[in-house]
Amino acid sequence: MQVDNCIFCKIVKGEIKSQKVYEDQDIVAFLDINPVNKGHVLVIPKDHFENIFDIPKDKLSKVMEVVQKVAIALKKMGADGVNIVSNNGKAAEQHVFHLHIHVIPRYYNDGKELDSMEKRTKYENDKEMNEYAERIRLFLI
Amino acid sequence: MQVDNCIFCKIVKGEIKSQKVYEDQDIVAFLDINPVNKGHVLVIPKDHFENIFDIPKDKLSKVMEVVQKVAIALKKMGADGVNIVSNNGKAAEQHVFHLHIHVIPRYYNDGKELDSMEKRTKYENDKEMNEYAERIRLFLI
Ligand SMILES: [Zn+2]
Ligand SMILES: [Zn+2]
Ligand SMILES: [Zn+2]
Ligand SMILES: [Zn+2]
Repeated sequence: MQVDNCIFCKIVKGEIKSQKVYEDQDIVAFLDINPVNKGHVLVIPKDHFENIFDIPKDKLSKVMEVVQKVAIALKKMGADGVNIVSNNGKAAEQHVFHLHIHVIPRYYNDGKELDSMEKRTKYENDKEMNEYAERIRLFLI
Repeated sequence: MQVDNCIFCKIVKGEIKSQKVYEDQDIVAFLDINPVNKGHVLVIPKDHFENIFDIPKDKLSKVMEVVQKVAIALKKMGADGVNIVSNNGKAAEQHVFHLHIHVIPRYYNDGKELDSMEKRTKYENDKEMNEYAERIRLFLI
């Protein structure tokens, strides 16, 4: 269930110290040591899955239940908002290859824009947009 | 189930045109018209919930099932990675107040850093980190 040389598996097994905020049979949640804002939590399944591409959906559902609990807790604690982020694959800036969901407390004017609009692009035209949609539909079957 | 003056509810009802890639009884997925990369999909519940703070967990679980399907489809289509992002609350850069999950295809060197490390902070010391963890634990009960 856990694998060697995975720092999150080591956190699950207690071989690496962490500040756990939640733990049950399937899930652990702990503080990110390099937070976007203090109180930034990582929620992980205890079993080792690399990312969204290989976790069974029932496990993902359990992860998300805890993500929601943590988000609500952060809000009650005074966060004005919460970002939920999961990076899957190196090209998507995944650094630890054990599925984890970032739950990040946000505050008005905290200067931490995560959704920088200048990084957005445009479809050339409706036709191109239609083609993209069609292609995704096909792969969804 | 849908509310007035919500553009995503209008998309659900078909009052606003969208490029849908998936639809079932509870969920719709469609192209973001302002994509980070082309093929960027938004997954929403048909019922209007503002965000993670008020969606029932069974509905969230259905949303995530489709998020996972879309992520896998984008990967099969050639994406090198996929970001999954949900902004909850204005302070977290939520702009449309109907819960939605961004599923963003990523490519090596696409220049779209979403997880800019320079925006990270540090805990003063272990004591401060411990206090944060303790506080979240308390609110999780
Ligand atoms: Zn692991
Ligand atoms: Zn991460
Ligand atoms: Zn709505
Ligand atoms: Zn959004």
